[in-house]
Amino acid sequence: MERAGRSSTLGSTDEVELEPSGTSATIHLDMTTGGGSSSSDFNPFGAIDDVRFKTEEDLPDALAPPFFSKYGDFHTIDWQRDLARDRLRHKMISKKKVDFPLGLLQSGWDAGAGWICVLFVGLAAGATAGIIDIGARWMSDLKTGVCADRFWLDREHCCWSSNDTFYKDDECKAWTKWPWMLNYYNSSSFLFLFLEWIFYIGWAVAMSTLAVLFVKIFAPYACGSGIPEIKCILSGFVIRGYLGKWTFIIKSVGLILSSASGLSLGKEGPMVHLACCIGNIFSYLFPKYGLNEAKKREILSASAAAGVSVAFGAPIGGVLFSLEEASYYFPLKTMWRSFFCALVAGIILRFVNPFGSNQTSLFHVDYMMKWTFIELVPFALLGLFGGIIGSLFIFANIRWSRFRKNSKTLGGNPIYEVMIITLITAAISYFNPFTRKSALSMIQQLFDRCEDQTDEDSLCDQNKALSIAFGQLLWALIFKFIITIFTFGIKVPCGLFVPSIGMGAIAGRILGITVDQIFRSVQATPGHSEYFTCQIGKDCVMPGLYAMVGAAAVLGGVTRMTVSLVVIMFELTGSLEFIVPTMVATMFSKWIGDGISKMGIYEAHIELNGYPFLDSKGEYPYSTVASQVMRPSIHRQVADELSMSDLRELKNELSVITESGMTLGDLEGLLRQTDFNGFPVVVSHNSMHLVGFITRRDILLALHTARKTQPYVVTNSIAYFSDAVPDSVPGAPAPLRLRKILDMAPMTVTDQTPMETVIDMFRKLGLRHVLVTKNGKVLGIITKKDILQFMRNKNSQ
Amino acid sequence: MERAGRSSTLGSTDEVELEPSGTSATIHLDMTTGGGSSSSDFNPFGAIDDVRFKTEEDLPDALAPPFFSKYGDFHTIDWQRDLARDRLRHKMISKKKVDFPLGLLQSGWDAGAGWICVLFVGLAAGATAGIIDIGARWMSDLKTGVCADRFWLDREHCCWSSNDTFYKDDECKAWTKWPWMLNYYNSSSFLFLFLEWIFYIGWAVAMSTLAVLFVKIFAPYACGSGIPEIKCILSGFVIRGYLGKWTFIIKSVGLILSSASGLSLGKEGPMVHLACCIGNIFSYLFPKYGLNEAKKREILSASAAAGVSVAFGAPIGGVLFSLEEASYYFPLKTMWRSFFCALVAGIILRFVNPFGSNQTSLFHVDYMMKWTFIELVPFALLGLFGGIIGSLFIFANIRWSRFRKNSKTLGGNPIYEVMIITLITAAISYFNPFTRKSALSMIQQLFDRCEDQTDEDSLCDQNKALSIAFGQLLWALIFKFIITIFTFGIKVPCGLFVPSIGMGAIAGRILGITVDQIFRSVQATPGHSEYFTCQIGKDCVMPGLYAMVGAAAVLGGVTRMTVSLVVIMFELTGSLEFIVPTMVATMFSKWIGDGISKMGIYEAHIELNGYPFLDSKGEYPYSTVASQVMRPSIHRQVADELSMSDLRELKNELSVITESGMTLGDLEGLLRQTDFNGFPVVVSHNSMHLVGFITRRDILLALHTARKTQPYVVTNSIAYFSDAVPDSVPGAPAPLRLRKILDMAPMTVTDQTPMETVIDMFRKLGLRHVLVTKNGKVLGIITKKDILQFMRNKNSQ
Repeated sequence: MERAGRSSTLGSTDEVELEPSGTSATIHLDMTTGGGSSSSDFNPFGAIDDVRFKTEEDLPDALAPPFFSKYGDFHTIDWQRDLARDRLRHKMISKKKVDFPLGLLQSGWDAGAGWICVLFVGLAAGATAGIIDIGARWMSDLKTGVCADRFWLDREHCCWSSNDTFYKDDECKAWTKWPWMLNYYNSSSFLFLFLEWIFYIGWAVAMSTLAVLFVKIFAPYACGSGIPEIKCILSGFVIRGYLGKWTFIIKSVGLILSSASGLSLGKEGPMVHLACCIGNIFSYLFPKYGLNEAKKREILSASAAAGVSVAFGAPIGGVLFSLEEASYYFPLKTMWRSFFCALVAGIILRFVNPFGSNQTSLFHVDYMMKWTFIELVPFALLGLFGGIIGSLFIFANIRWSRFRKNSKTLGGNPIYEVMIITLITAAISYFNPFTRKSALSMIQQLFDRCEDQTDEDSLCDQNKALSIAFGQLLWALIFKFIITIFTFGIKVPCGLFVPSIGMGAIAGRILGITVDQIFRSVQATPGHSEYFTCQIGKDCVMPGLYAMVGAAAVLGGVTRMTVSLVVIMFELTGSLEFIVPTMVATMFSKWIGDGISKMGIYEAHIELNGYPFLDSKGEYPYSTVASQVMRPSIHRQVADELSMSDLRELKNELSVITESGMTLGDLEGLLRQTDFNGFPVVVSHNSMHLVGFITRRDILLALHTARKTQPYVVTNSIAYFSDAVPDSVPGAPAPLRLRKILDMAPMTVTDQTPMETVIDMFRKLGLRHVLVTKNGKVLGIITKKDILQFMRNKNSQ
Repeated sequence: MERAGRSSTLGSTDEVELEPSGTSATIHLDMTTGGGSSSSDFNPFGAIDDVRFKTEEDLPDALAPPFFSKYGDFHTIDWQRDLARDRLRHKMISKKKVDFPLGLLQSGWDAGAGWICVLFVGLAAGATAGIIDIGARWMSDLKTGVCADRFWLDREHCCWSSNDTFYKDDECKAWTKWPWMLNYYNSSSFLFLFLEWIFYIGWAVAMSTLAVLFVKIFAPYACGSGIPEIKCILSGFVIRGYLGKWTFIIKSVGLILSSASGLSLGKEGPMVHLACCIGNIFSYLFPKYGLNEAKKREILSASAAAGVSVAFGAPIGGVLFSLEEASYYFPLKTMWRSFFCALVAGIILRFVNPFGSNQTSLFHVDYMMKWTFIELVPFALLGLFGGIIGSLFIFANIRWSRFRKNSKTLGGNPIYEVMIITLITAAISYFNPFTRKSALSMIQQLFDRCEDQTDEDSLCDQNKALSIAFGQLLWALIFKFIITIFTFGIKVPCGLFVPSIGMGAIAGRILGITVDQIFRSVQATPGHSEYFTCQIGKDCVMPGLYAMVGAAAVLGGVTRMTVSLVVIMFELTGSLEFIVPTMVATMFSKWIGDGISKMGIYEAHIELNGYPFLDSKGEYPYSTVASQVMRPSIHRQVADELSMSDLRELKNELSVITESGMTLGDLEGLLRQTDFNGFPVVVSHNSMHLVGFITRRDILLALHTARKTQPYVVTNSIAYFSDAVPDSVPGAPAPLRLRKILDMAPMTVTDQTPMETVIDMFRKLGLRHVLVTKNGKVLGIITKKDILQFMRNKNSQ
C-alpha cells in the first residue's frame, strides 16, 4: 500500500484531524470527558457523507456545488467561496428584479433581510436577557426565604407589594425566611443562624446541581462561558449544535440556576453565547444567511454585540467587543448592523426593566468630585495589580483546567465537582457580608459614593467599622480569587466578567480607602502641600472611583481587552469624566499582563482545547518561506532554492488529477486510496502546470450523480476537466465532462513567498488552503491546519 | 515605433498616470488651479529619477532595494513589500540582541519606538490644539474690540482681570470696543452700530485674506479640510509635502485666522490634518517608521485619532473615527496605540485648558429629565431631515467645487473668492444673534437646558421673545446652509464638522421648540392622554436634546459616519443617557442619505479630485473575471475561456523579461522603450511560465550600479535572474547576476478569478499589482489603477 502511506505526509486539506476518540485527538471539547450521555448531540464521526448526499441529491446536478455547500462538523469554512456563492445568488435575484411585482418584492426582501434578521435577534436577545435577569433574581432570593402570599415574587417586590410597614435592612414580614417556616423566629439565636446557613448552602447546592444535570443530560455544549468557542466559530470553524436550540434552552435555564446559586461566576459570557444561539436560529429564517456559513457569521457578529449590550447595558461597548475580541471577518457594514442589533436589544431590556430602576447603566455612579493628577499614580498601581493578578489567574486556571482534562477522577465526575465547589463557595461566602450578597450588589456598593449610601454602610464609617470592613474586603478578595480559579471551567454556564470586575472592585476599594486615609492624615498635619487639599466637609478621594478603576484593571488583565473594555466600563457606570483613570489603569494592566504572558484567558482556553483559531492579532516574524511549510514536505531547514531532485520527489508524493486522461475508475481509485479533501488539477503529470482545484466533496458528488443519471458513463469513461473534449468515438466509452465543478480560481503563492505573507493571506482572505507553485508548476499545498501547526511549533521553540 | 504604442494598452504598473499639466491629467489637486506661485511645493513632474539615484547611491548595492525603498510622488505604496522590509529590519536587530549592552538597548528602543513616537505626537497635538484654540479665541474677540491695558487678553480674561465691577452682558469697561477708540460711546446710536458693523466686517475680511495669502504663498496644501487627502494617504497614496512642516505651520496659523474670521467653517478637519503632519514629522525621528511608508501609516492612523480627540475632546470617538473613516490598514495593535495617542493629546489639551473651564467635554450638557418613547418619532424625523439636507449639501457643494475647478475666473482667483465669501458672511452674520457669536457658543446655547441659561435668553422665554428667536433660528439655518456650500472648498483651512453640527443644532432646536409648544397646548386642554403628562413646573420636552440629536443627524447625513459619530456626540456632550435618540437619528440619517446618494462628502471630494482611493466599504457584485480587466486587454465582454489566438496575441503585447538570455543592452532598450513600472520575469518567451517580478526602479538601479562598479560588465553581458549562471567563458562578456533584485513572491491570480476576489485581495493585502496567469503562464497584469478604472466604469454604467 504505497499510496496509503502518503496521507501521513500530505494530510487532508481540512483543518482538524479528527480521529476516533480514545486516540490522540487534536480536539478535546469540554464535555467529551463529561460522560457518555452526551453522545446524542456530540458525535462528529457519524455518517457525514450520507447526510451530504441526502440533502443535495434533489438539486440540479451541475449547479449543486456552487449553490449549496455544507461543511462537515469541525471543518473550517472557505470564506471566499461562500461569499462568491452569495454574490451569485444576489445576481440571480437582481436579474429577476424586472418581473414585477414578485421579483421586485424578492429583491427588496433580500436587501432588507439582514436588517430584519438582526432586528429579530435584538428583540429576542433583549427579552431573553430580561427573563434571565428576573429569574436569577427570584431564585437568588430563594436561598434566604420565600414570599408568603405570592411565592413568585422576589424579596424586593414581595416587601413592596405587601405594604408592610415593618421594613428595615431589606427585610419585611411578608418575606418568610426559611427558619421561620420551622418556627424559629429569634434571629439572633445560634440555631436560627445555623439553620439559615444550612438552607443557604442547601439551596445553592440544589440549584447548581440541577444546572449541571441539565447541561450533562440535554446539552453538553451549554456549559462554560462560550466565548472561546464563539471566537472560533466566528473565525470560520463549524461546530454543529453549539449554537442550536437545545443549547439555547438549557444554557438559559442553567444560567438562571448557576448564577442564583451564588457561585463566583457571571452571566455575561453565557449571554454572548445565548445571543449567538438566537442569531443562529433566526438566520435559518433567511436562506441568504442560514445556508451560507460565511454570511451567517455577519449575523453572529451582530448577535455577539447584542449579547454584550444586554449583559452590561453597553451597546457601543458591545459593538467594540464584537470587533476587538470576538469577530474575525468584520466589514464596516456589519459594524453598523451590529450597532443596530445591540441598540434594539438594549432598548428591549430597558423596556423589560428587570432591575426595576430607570437607570440605563448597570452600575450607575454619579461622582461629584474631580480626580487630581497625582491620583494617576495609584491608578497606574491598580493597573499593575490588575495585570499581575490577571496573569496569575490565567496561569492557575489553565493549570487547573489541564489537570481536569487529564484526570479521570475529576474530569469524569463533573457533577460532584460542581457540588463541592458550590458547597465550599456557599459555606464560606455566607460569613462575609460582601460575598454573601449577589456579586452585582457588592460591585454597586463598592462603586458607590459614600454620600449615597445608607447610614449603616460600614465602608463609609470613619471609625472602627471601617477597619472591620477593610479586613472583610481583604478576605473577600483572597477568597474570590481562589474560588474563581476553580469555578471557571466547571460544567455549568459560567462567565468571567463579573468575578473579574468583583475582584477588581474590591482591590480598588481597598486601595481607595488606604489613599483616603493617607490624604486625611496629611491634611490633619499643618503645613501640608496644596496638592492634598480638598474641599472641607467632603471626602478627599473617592474610594468608589478606585473600585471602578480597579475593576477595569483586573478585567483588562484577565481578558486583555483594551478599547472595548474602557467603553464598556464607562457605559456600565454612565460616567464619562473618569475615562482617563480607566484608560491609564487598562493600559498598565495590558502592558504588564502582556509582559508576563501574551495570551488572554480566552486565547489560553482556545489553545488548551486545540481549536483551529488563527489569531488575527499577533505578528510572526519568522524567516520561513512557503516551500518549507507546504505538504508534501521537503526536509530541510533553510529557505534555499529547491533542487531538481527535490522537485522530482515532490511530484511523486503529491496526489494530483490531470486535466484530461484520467478515467472514472482512476478517479474513484484516487478517492478511495487517499483521504485528502481536495486535489490540484494539472495539465499533465509531466509538466505539473496548475489548472485548478477540486474538492473531494464535489468530485464525489459529481461521480455519484453521473453514475446514477448518465447510464452511458462507465468506469472506463475519461473525465475531462477542460473544455477540449474530443468528439466521442462510437464504441468507446462516453466522456464525462467535469469542467463545471472545477474551481478555476484557486489561490496560489510561489515557493519563495515568506510565511508572514501566507499567514496574512489566510487571515485576511479567510482561506482554507493555498497551492504552492514554482515557475507555474504546482509543488504542494498549505492548509490552515499546516499554518496552525507551524505557528504552534514556532511558538513552542 | 511599434513598442511605444503598447504603453497605451498596457499602462504603467503604478496607479496614477501623471501627464504634463494642460492635457487630461487624471489628478487635479485643489491648488493646481490656484495660481502659478504654488509650483515650488507642487511639481510632481520634476526629476524624480534623479532624486532616486542621488539618495540611494551611497547604500551597499546588493542590499539597497529591500532596505531602502522610496516611492515617487503620487505613487501608491506596496504594503506587503514594506512590511516585509520591516520584518527584515526587525530580524537584524533581534540578531544583534546578544551584543550586550548596545544590541539590547537598540532592541528595546526598537520595541518601544512606536509608543514613544505616539506619545510625542499626542503631546504635540494637544499643545498645538491648545495654542490654536487660545489664538482663535483672542482673534475672534478682536473683531469687536481690544483689551485696553493688556492687548494680549481676550474679552473674558480682559474683563475678569480688570476687576471691573461694571460687567453685564459679557461687556466691561476694560474691553475697548472699536467705536470707542473713535470716541463714539453711545452704543444705541446708529453711527455706533454702523461703525461696529464696519469694524466687524473689516477684521473678518482682513483675517481671512491673510489666511489665504499665507496658504497661497507658502503652502498650497494647507487649504481645505484635509480629510479626503488623509484618507488617501492612509490608504497608501504618497503625496509628498502634504504632511510637511510648512503645511503644518501655515495650516496652524491659517486655521487661527480663518476660524477667527467668523466664516462658516470648523477647526476639526484641519486639526486631523495637523495631527497627521505632527505624526509625519515625528516619524522621521524613528527610522523604523520614517523610512517605511507602510509602518509610517500606523503612526498616522494614531495621529488622526489624536486629531479628533483634541478637536472634540473625544478620545474614544477619535479612535473610532480613525478606524471607521480614515484608516485603511488598521491592525488591532494600532488601535490600542491610537487610543494611547488620543488619550495623551486629550490630557494635554485639558492641561492647557484653552476654554478656562474644567469640563472635559466641549458642550457639556446635564439634562435632568428622561425622554419618552413617543419622542423617538420626532428624533427619527430629525434623522430624515439630516439625511436629506446632508445629501443636498453634498450635491450642491460638489457641483460648486466642480464649477470652481473648471472656471478660470473663479479657480484662478482664490483670494478674491475668499474675500467675497467673508464679506458676505460677516455682513449678514452680524444681524443675527445666533450667527454673530462664534459657532461653538451658538451650539452650546442651543444644546443647553433652559434652566441653566441666563434670564435674557430668548430661547427660553415663553412669550413673544420666543417667536422672534424662532424666526432668527430659521433664518440662521437657511443662511448657514447656503453659505457653507460656498465656504467648504475655499483656499483657507476649513473643516465641516462644526458647520454641520451647527445646522443640525438649529434645526433640532426649531423642532424641539415646536414639539414643546404642542405638548404644552395639549396639556392645557383637559382630558389629555397620559403620554403628554410631564412634571408640573418643568418643561415637557428638552429642546436642547433635540438640538443635540439634530446635530448628530446632519453630521451623519454629511459625513455618513455611524458608530464613531454616535460616540463622538456623546463624548462631546458627556451624556450617556441619550445614546438611543442619537442612534435613532443617525440611523435614519444614514439610511436616507445612502438612499439618495452612496457617497459621503469626503468620498465625493476624493472622486472629484480623482484620487486613487480604493474604498474598503462597498461591495461590487460584478460578473467579471480577472482576464477581462488585466492589461494587455482582450476585447470581449463575456467571461469565457481564452482561445489560443487570444493567448498568442497577449504574449506579443506583454513586455516581459526572460530569466536568462537577455543582454544588458536588451534590458536597457526595454526600459527606454516602455514606461511600465515593473516587468514579469518568465522562464522563456516561448513558455511564458512565471518566475518572478521586477520593478523598473530596482532594475534601473542595478544596471546603473553595475555599469559604475563592475567595469567588466558591458552592453553584451547577459543578465541572469536565475541561479544557474554558466561559468564565464574567457573572452565572452562577463555575466550579470540579478537574482537578488528579483521579487520571487509576486502575487498571482488565475485568469478565471472573479474580480470581487481580486478587489478583495487589493484592499485587504494592500497590493499594487497582481499578475494574471493561466496554467502557470503569465497572461497580463492588473494594477490598482486598472481596478479603480474598472470600478469607476462599472459605477457609471
